[in-house]
Order: sequence, then C-alpha cells, then structure tokens
Amino acid sequence: MAKNSPNTKIRVHFEPDNTDIIAEPGANLRETALAAGVHINASCGGAGTCGTCKVMIKKGEVESIRTARVSDEEYASGIRQACQSTVITDLIVQIPVASRLEKAVLAREKKAMVAGIQPSVALAKGWGFNPPVSKLLLELPPPTLKDNISDLSRLLRGLKQQYDLTSVSVEFTVIKKLARVLRDGDWKVTVTTLRDSKPRLTVTNVEPGDTRARHYSLAFDIGTTAVRGQLLDLNRGKVLAQSLDYNGQISYGEDVISRIAYSQKPGGLKKLGRAVVGTINGLLQELTKQAGTEVKDISHMVIAGNTVMVQLLLGLDPKYIRLSPYVPTVNIAPPVRASSLGIGVEEHVHLYALPSVASYVGGDIVAGILGTGVYQRKTVTLYIDIGTNGEIVIGNSDFMVTASCSAGPAFEGGGIKQGMLATSGAIEGFSISPSNFEPMVTTIGGTKPKGICGSGLINIVAGLLRAGAISQNGKFNTELATSRIRQGEDGYEYILAWAPETQIGRDIVFTEIDIDNLIRAKAAMYAGCQTLIKSLGAKCSNIEQVIIAGTFGSNIDIENAITIGLLPDLPLDKFIFIGNGSLLGARLTSFSTDLAGDGQRIARMMTNFELSENADFMNNYVAALFLPHTNVDEFSSVKIKVG
Amino acid sequence: MAKNSPNTKIRVHFEPDNTDIIAEPGANLRETALAAGVHINASCGGAGTCGTCKVMIKKGEVESIRTARVSDEEYASGIRQACQSTVITDLIVQIPVASRLEKAVLAREKKAMVAGIQPSVALAKGWGFNPPVSKLLLELPPPTLKDNISDLSRLLRGLKQQYDLTSVSVEFTVIKKLARVLRDGDWKVTVTTLRDSKPRLTVTNVEPGDTRARHYSLAFDIGTTAVRGQLLDLNRGKVLAQSLDYNGQISYGEDVISRIAYSQKPGGLKKLGRAVVGTINGLLQELTKQAGTEVKDISHMVIAGNTVMVQLLLGLDPKYIRLSPYVPTVNIAPPVRASSLGIGVEEHVHLYALPSVASYVGGDIVAGILGTGVYQRKTVTLYIDIGTNGEIVIGNSDFMVTASCSAGPAFEGGGIKQGMLATSGAIEGFSISPSNFEPMVTTIGGTKPKGICGSGLINIVAGLLRAGAISQNGKFNTELATSRIRQGEDGYEYILAWAPETQIGRDIVFTEIDIDNLIRAKAAMYAGCQTLIKSLGAKCSNIEQVIIAGTFGSNIDIENAITIGLLPDLPLDKFIFIGNGSLLGARLTSFSTDLAGDGQRIARMMTNFELSENADFMNNYVAALFLPHTNVDEFSSVKIKVG
Repeated sequence: MAKNSPNTKIRVHFEPDNTDIIAEPGANLRETALAAGVHINASCGGAGTCGTCKVMIKKGEVESIRTARVSDEEYASGIRQACQSTVITDLIVQIPVASRLEKAVLAREKKAMVAGIQPSVALAKGWGFNPPVSKLLLELPPPTLKDNISDLSRLLRGLKQQYDLTSVSVEFTVIKKLARVLRDGDWKVTVTTLRDSKPRLTVTNVEPGDTRARHYSLAFDIGTTAVRGQLLDLNRGKVLAQSLDYNGQISYGEDVISRIAYSQKPGGLKKLGRAVVGTINGLLQELTKQAGTEVKDISHMVIAGNTVMVQLLLGLDPKYIRLSPYVPTVNIAPPVRASSLGIGVEEHVHLYALPSVASYVGGDIVAGILGTGVYQRKTVTLYIDIGTNGEIVIGNSDFMVTASCSAGPAFEGGGIKQGMLATSGAIEGFSISPSNFEPMVTTIGGTKPKGICGSGLINIVAGLLRAGAISQNGKFNTELATSRIRQGEDGYEYILAWAPETQIGRDIVFTEIDIDNLIRAKAAMYAGCQTLIKSLGAKCSNIEQVIIAGTFGSNIDIENAITIGLLPDLPLDKFIFIGNGSLLGARLTSFSTDLAGDGQRIARMMTNFELSENADFMNNYVAALFLPHTNVDEFSSVKIKVG
Repeated sequence: MAKNSPNTKIRVHFEPDNTDIIAEPGANLRETALAAGVHINASCGGAGTCGTCKVMIKKGEVESIRTARVSDEEYASGIRQACQSTVITDLIVQIPVASRLEKAVLAREKKAMVAGIQPSVALAKGWGFNPPVSKLLLELPPPTLKDNISDLSRLLRGLKQQYDLTSVSVEFTVIKKLARVLRDGDWKVTVTTLRDSKPRLTVTNVEPGDTRARHYSLAFDIGTTAVRGQLLDLNRGKVLAQSLDYNGQISYGEDVISRIAYSQKPGGLKKLGRAVVGTINGLLQELTKQAGTEVKDISHMVIAGNTVMVQLLLGLDPKYIRLSPYVPTVNIAPPVRASSLGIGVEEHVHLYALPSVASYVGGDIVAGILGTGVYQRKTVTLYIDIGTNGEIVIGNSDFMVTASCSAGPAFEGGGIKQGMLATSGAIEGFSISPSNFEPMVTTIGGTKPKGICGSGLINIVAGLLRAGAISQNGKFNTELATSRIRQGEDGYEYILAWAPETQIGRDIVFTEIDIDNLIRAKAAMYAGCQTLIKSLGAKCSNIEQVIIAGTFGSNIDIENAITIGLLPDLPLDKFIFIGNGSLLGARLTSFSTDLAGDGQRIARMMTNFELSENADFMNNYVAALFLPHTNVDEFSSVKIKVG
C-alpha cells in the first residue's frame, strides 16, 4: 500500500464507537484515540507493559513495536498495542471488548447507592447538624443621612445585631456586588457564611431576598477509578441525589503511579486536572437534574480522595509523592474556590478537601475513619480499604496507626493474564466440584465471561485451594484427573471457561503466574496488618472490629478472603462492610462543622508507617507468601485439603 | 465641501501632538481624542458645561452644539467645544494651550518631593519599625523516610521552630509552587509573611535561597488630579524613589462627581479603573528604574485616596456615593491582590487601602491624621485639606469630628472664567499698587500667563480687597482711577494681563462672577470649620494647631487666606504645612504594623458630619458670604481698606 506523503492528513475510524478523527502521520494511536474521545484501557498509562490497550487494525497500516504482550496468533490477526503504534495510513480500528470501558458495573453500584443502607454500628456519633456553610436572612434598615455608614458596615452591623456574629471576614467578591444586591433586595438579603476550622467566619455570598430554602452542597469521593458524588440538602440534612462515573483520568493510566508519570509529561498535569474536572462537571449536571435543583443554589463542596487524586484536582504537581521519601506538597489544603479549578459552580462555592495523612494515606481514609466514628470509640478497630494501594488503619479513640500497602494491581485485575476491572462480563463467583474439578462461574451483569476481576480471583484461589487443586505455595496439582488443568504458554493453568462459552472467543484461563501475583498482593495487605499490630505490641486477636471499606471490599467474600490469608482469621461477625467510606465522610463533613474539625484532628492523630523500606514488613511479607500463611496458627479456622 | 459617505473612514489629526486617528463619521470629537491618547481638559467630564475642552478646527468640518461657553469671536475663529462636536470630514484639530495638560508643575512638585522635608512637630510618634510584610529565612532539614511530612507541614514546622510562629495561614498560590521552590532552594528558602490587623499571619510568598536583602514596598496616594508614589526599602525604612503623574482618569472628568457620572456609562467603570492602573504602572516602572530595583522584589503596596478614588481602583461602583444619603460600598476594604486589579506587580503583592470614614472623607484624610499623629496628641488640631471637596478634621487623642465641604471647583481653577489647574503659566503671585492699582503677577514656571490657578485666586482677591479695589461683598469699586477695571461681557472685571503679555493672545481677566465663585468656595470651607467647632461646644480660639495638607494647601499664602476668610483668624505660628499627608500616612503604614492598625482605629474614631443638609452649616455658610465674614469679630486681625 502506498504510504501517504508527510503532509497528508490521515483519517482514523474507531469501532464500535463509529468515531472519526483526522491525525498527523506518525501520531501515536492511543493518543489519537484519546484525542477522539475514544477510551482504550491502559493500566500502565501507555508504557507498553500491561497489554490492556490491544486493538485490532481492520484496515490500513500502523508502525508498531511488538512486545511479549502480543502473541503470534494475535499479531497475525492484526492485534496491536495502541500505545506502541503510530498511524501511517487511513485506518479502521476495532476496540475489542477487553479494551473497552464498560459502564454496566457502575450502573449496578448506582442502584446500590440509591438503596444506601449504612450499618449504624459503624457511624460517627454525637455530632450536631450544623453545616459549615449557613444561610442567614438579614433585614436591614435602609440608609438615611443620620445613618449613612458604608454598605459593608451595615451588613456587618446587621450580622452582629441580628445573629450576634462578630469578627466576620467578607470576601472581596461579595463586596463587589454588595451595593447592587442590597438595593435589589430592598435591604432584605440572604448572607452565606462559611465557618472554617480555626474557627473563623467568612461571608462568601449575598443574594437579594430570602433564598434560605435553596441551600445545597456537594459531597464527592474522587477515586482513582471512579468519581462518586452526592447532592445534599443543607436545610434538611438529606441526600437528594447521587451518582458516579469513571474518573476521566482513567484514559491516562489506571493507577496513581501511571497518573503521576503522565503528570510529568508536558501539559500532563493540566490534562489530568481537566479530565477529572470534566467528570465532576458531568456528575454535577446529573445530580442537579435528578434533584430538580439549580447549580446556582449550591453553597459548598466537600471532597475526599487519595493524596494523588486531591493534588491532581488542586493542580499540585504530585512528582515527589512517587519518589522516596514520598512527600506530598500538602496534607491539609486550605479551601479553594471550586470555580478556580474549573468546576462549574458559582464563584462563592469553596471546595474543602478532607486532609491526608501521607502520600499514600489520603483524605479518603481520613473520611472513612471520620464517617465510621472509629476515632470516637474505645473499640480497637481494623479499617481496611483493599486496592492497588491498600490502606490499613488500626486504632480507636486513643491511638491510630496507618500504612499503605503497595499490593499491586492484582485486586483490580491488573497483572493477571485475563484480569479485568470489575465490570460487565468479569468472572466473580466461583465454585468447584470436589469430585471432577469442574467449575461453576458467575459474571458481573450475568453475561458471558470475558475475564476475571479482583473479587473473582479471591474466590477462585480459595475454591481451588479448598478442593486441593492447588497447593499452599500456589502450584497446581497436575496429577488430578481433569482436563481443566493443563500446561499453557505461561506454565500450568486452569481453564475457567472454554472459548465458545466466552465473549472473547478464546479460553479464559487462570495461571500459576496469576496465583503468584495474587499471593503477593494478599501477602502485602496481610503483612501490612501484621506490621501495624506488632508496632502496637498487640496481637491479631486484640482486634475487636474489622471495617471493610471501598467498592472492591464490598464485593469480596470474607470467608474466602480469610481462606487465602488476605484478611485476618477472626470470627465473621466482627466484619462490617461500609461501602464507600470516603463519600460517607465527605457527606458528614458537609453536614457538621464539628466533624469538619475532626477531620484535621484524625489526620494529625494518625501515625503513618512507611512500609516500603521497613524490615519488619519485609519479614512479614515473605512469611505471608503462602496459602493462607506459613504460620498455620494464624489461620486455625481455615480447613484446606492438603494434596 | 462634499461630505464623506457614511462608510468612509475619517482621519483626524491633532496638533501640537501630531497624532492621527481614523474615526467613524459622527464620532464625538472629545472621545476621538481620548481614543488617540490626546488629552483635552474637561472639568465637567464632557457634559458641555465647563468650556475647558475648547479646540480649534483648522481644517475640515464638525457638527457642533454651541453653548454660551463659546463667544461669537471664538466661534468665528473656528473654536468649538470638543465634547459638543462630532466629526464629519477629515480634520486638523489644534488643542489650544488652555485645553492642554501641562506637566511642568508636576516637575516642580517632583523636585519638592525629593527635598522631602517633613515638619517633625506634626509626625506620628511612638511607632516601631515593623512592616506588616516580613521576609524570613528558613533552613529546613530535607525529608527522609523517618520524617516525610508534607512540604507544607515542613514549612509550618520551620516557622514554628525557627521563628515561634503558630496559627499561620498559607495562600494557595504559595502551595502551588512550594514543592518546586523548596527543592530549587535546596531546603533553604525565604518566606514572605503578611500580618493583618486582626492580627493574623499569612504566608504570601516563598522564594528559593536567601532573598531578604531585596524587600521593597510601594506607597501611593491616589489623588483625583494626581497620583503620587514612593518605592520604600522595607529593610532600612527608607524612601528609595518617588514620583508623580496626573491621574489618567483626568481625561474623563476633573472632579470626583464627573468621574462617578462617567462610571455609570457602559464600560465606564472599567475604563476608569484601567486609566488609574495605567498611571500606577507607569510610575511603578519609573520608581524601580530610579531606585535600580526589580519589580519582582516588591513585597507590599499601601495606597491612600479619597473614597471615590479607592472604590474606582478596586472596581467598586461608586454610584451611591453621589446620591443622598451618600453611602460608599466599603470604608474598610479587605486587602486584595494588586495584580488582580491589573497592577504590574507579582501575584503575591497585597494592596492595602487606608480605610475611609464616609463617602467624602476618605483614606487620604485618615492617612494624614495617621501620619501627622493628630490622634496621638492632646493638642486640639484643625486638619484641613482644601480642594473641590475640602476635608476638615478637628480633634485630638480623645475625639475627632470630620466633614467634607463641597467647595466647588474654584480652588482648582474650575468655574472661573480664565481659571486653570496649578500648572505652567497659571498666575499665582499677585500684588497691586495701592496708588494706581496696577498689578504685578507671577506665574508657575515663570512663563507668560495663560490663566489663573486656585492659590492665585486667593492672592488676587486678598490683594484687591486690601487695596479697596473690591468691596467686602465682592463688588468692584468702579470709581477708581484705573483702566484695569472695566465692564466686560460678564459684568465688571479686572484685567490681570493684557493680551500681548499672555500666552493665549487675549486679555486675562478676573470677573465679579469669579469673585462670587471664590467667596462661595471659601464660605463653604469656613462654614464647615465653624459647624464642626460648634458641634464640639468650642470656639475657634480653642484650636491649638492648624495642619494644612495637600498640594493646593502647600501653595497658599496663609495671611491672604485669612484675609479673605478662608482660614480662621489664628496666629500664623499655629499653622503648619505638611504637603501630601496621604502619601505620608501610606508610607508609615507600610513601615509599621502598629500604625496599620491605627488606621482603622482612626476611621472608627471619627464622627462624620454630613453638611449638605445640615441647617447650622447653611446658616454659617450664608454668614460667610462676605469678605472676610459678616461677623467682623471673627477676623479681628484682618485690616482692610473700606472703600
């Protein structure tokens, strides 16, 4: 095929999106897709190492670096890694199911959110409903020659006389419109005040007439994968609407490390900022539509997120978070105007971010501790949020220690041969016949399977282990009478589904390398727990309650998680799922000034352990590289069939 | 002459500037000049009432509304009021001397400023040199795994450990660059802090390395007519440079009332803001050049100005200042980022405006009271700043009353047939021969005369009164044997200079109407003093010191001012000139946090009297419409020849 001349523009057509874009010859194919608004998964952020961005070139020519991620068979069929390809001629590119972002699973969570049952045993107590942002009605006497103090002095005098408020600051944006608003409202106005943690009171808005009935706030959890938002009624303390969407940054890399890497590219920090703000603004429209409210009546915004997410949203370079000794720019950020970040609310809306503890223990964890009231009770609690970076907190009202465990991406399907995010088609449920070792799998969305998600992995390993199909060091028992276990290209593997039963038209398998990855992930989490417990001079049995936070955690089977040695071997009734602790904490912070102050107290109270260079952690980690553990006494309840 | 078709563009050439501009047919000639950057005086701001914007159409055609301000003779010679004319064809327009802004007199003041002698008897005392803005050197330990708190926490810990500073706020702009600056400076940085009046401490800047040696501030007096600025060294408490220029707003009207009127036109408020900011930025360049410093090393800015000037600079609509009951939006404005107003300093520079007392008693007066220490002494002082709006303060450390007298523009040459600003060619000195009534006049700049300035008016009336050439009710003695007094087109007049002796080629005269205007102006000032004195239950003789502030005041002859009844009849040694009290106060505020707090105290301490609808003031005013006064006992020292 004749190549285009260098000046020719190239048309790239993406399927199944049916989206076209004009590109320069030599443009990177993944970036071209990004520019066209077409999502291609890319766990590694475009480094070429993960293989999740595979596409099929149906027509036209690309120049491509081939890595071990593309098999001979795939290569022959036109499969290329988008991030490793540059466009040469006009193209028709097919994004395979495995590389697409599926929104179905979010719809599942959306339903669950609306149901929204919060276990009251793990909820902060003793707080008053007194939002940091208030609306006050002021009826002022109009000026006369005998009383012609400035408009601002009249406002402040009114606040003092009618509400006994003194030492009030007034934002310049309020002063700018004050003369007009006072007269438009015929000296009857609604004043919005913001109380910060010092505590200091600031007037952030003034509106003509009585607008007190319209007084809302936003609570957002800014997750690495998904962004979850709620619209709150600040008069009645109610959730009026809630929704969620994938974090728009996901196209630039799936974990915080690839996001940080992307932020270091020219313009990267800005692009990441715009991406998450785009997601927030989309949700904002949806929330106000759901609730039948107007954006202009939103008075406040509280967010919680991990340290990297918060820094990216605030436009702070996260470079040093990734480099030892892992220093964030800020843990306790001052409130900023949400509009200054591009968020589509009115100028007077301040955004408060829940404080972080350290580079890898963020405001989402502080929010969870706040919302669940761990810091208020004597009960010694293990709070655990499992993920690529699993965060652990152990403590009560007297003390709190925390650590982040770099578990790797296995829990989110990363580094697993046929792993995937917990979206439609992911194998989650697994059981195995102890007699013929045939599996029974269920998928998210009930569709034909296309891969394996993190919670599925736990169930699969636990099932295989109990059935004696794998040994405690994670090797397949190759002597079993089953065709399900075979020698694959990456060593031994177990066939979860035969090609005809799948969406992807090839066998879905689970390999010894996958088992190894999962063992390392669970070992990191468990070793983190052990290290913290030991640092307190305590034992596992001292833990009186385990709170499992996060979307991933909500979907795991506790018994199976104990069986593989991910969670400590404690009675099942000690475990509580609380779902999204981050959003819970953000919401309560928006409802209560008392709790807003507690956020900083919690962040300061927590002692962070950096595990990455901690010798004790390394020992615990090595000891945990076994199913469930090298020390059988730690998992006395786990019954496995020793093969 | 054939008119241009409506689509034709018209070329307007201005002399003596030699500036061309292309205009639309029908464009207003004065606005065309403004657009071309050519200044034409316009006391009334373009209403057509003052006649100061006269121009000569040397070639081409305008359409013009003729008012009484243009004589038959002028009209025949091609003289038109620019504000009343629209362009029809290509034009050559001559701006006559009388309509031009002369910078010579500013050069005179510039010299005087550099000499800069401040009478120490009237200077605030007992203040420490402790600028609100400080630079602190911090040497921080680099982070390690055992000490990996956030960059911000490290900074705050350093401020606490090394300077014992707690409860410090940090601006988000600082947080944005913190990670980079800390590492660029290898953990040695200079922190700029701002202490406000609460007192609260805010970190406004952070720079790599030790920049303490470069630490400057700006003090500005934003006058209606002129803007005066100083560049200050905050390490040594020295004035490094000073300069002044006409306020760029002068092209939109000469007094505050015409500025307010202009601000109500579409885009007017923005244009006025840009005009004064342009003036400030020009001076900023000049000041840093003079001092050999760089703009980036400026840490702070303090301004003082009347309430209208401050509101216009801050972009606050001054509409309600002009309407009864005369309410400003703000008297005590919070500090704003100077850069947000367009001032060409770095983002971290906060602008602090000295507080006002009321719509017509501004921060310039508060600055003067602050700088002269009136509020610190027991001495009962009359502080007076004479101008279109003359401000008066009477008080001491126990009490203070103030009022603004709407004297009208006479003191600035307005409303006077051949009046002008105190610029080059203005008649200022005047004496008269008691025998033949011939005058001797001197002008500013020593040039041929072209008009009469305000201080000249006082000297002329006092001279004519002493010589018996005018009566105590301001009428010419027409029976004197002199050709200098004649019947003119506006009634009787005195010829100060014959046409051949002038720059303008016609007789410079002083009319009975002019005398009447001056009498009304001085009566307003004096009645204001009387009203305040009476409000205190005191008498004129209780005044122990008179401080005369302002450029105009600095040029008046005290004896003559008493002779005409403008100033109270007190011994001459009680009078002190302090020049620009506004700039003095702004400078001291920049040098001392103590005094910065005193500014608000003074503003709150002053009781403002609105004279415009005060019956006592009206009685005093009517009684003062006589030379020197209807009550001769009040001016017993004045010896006049009763004709």
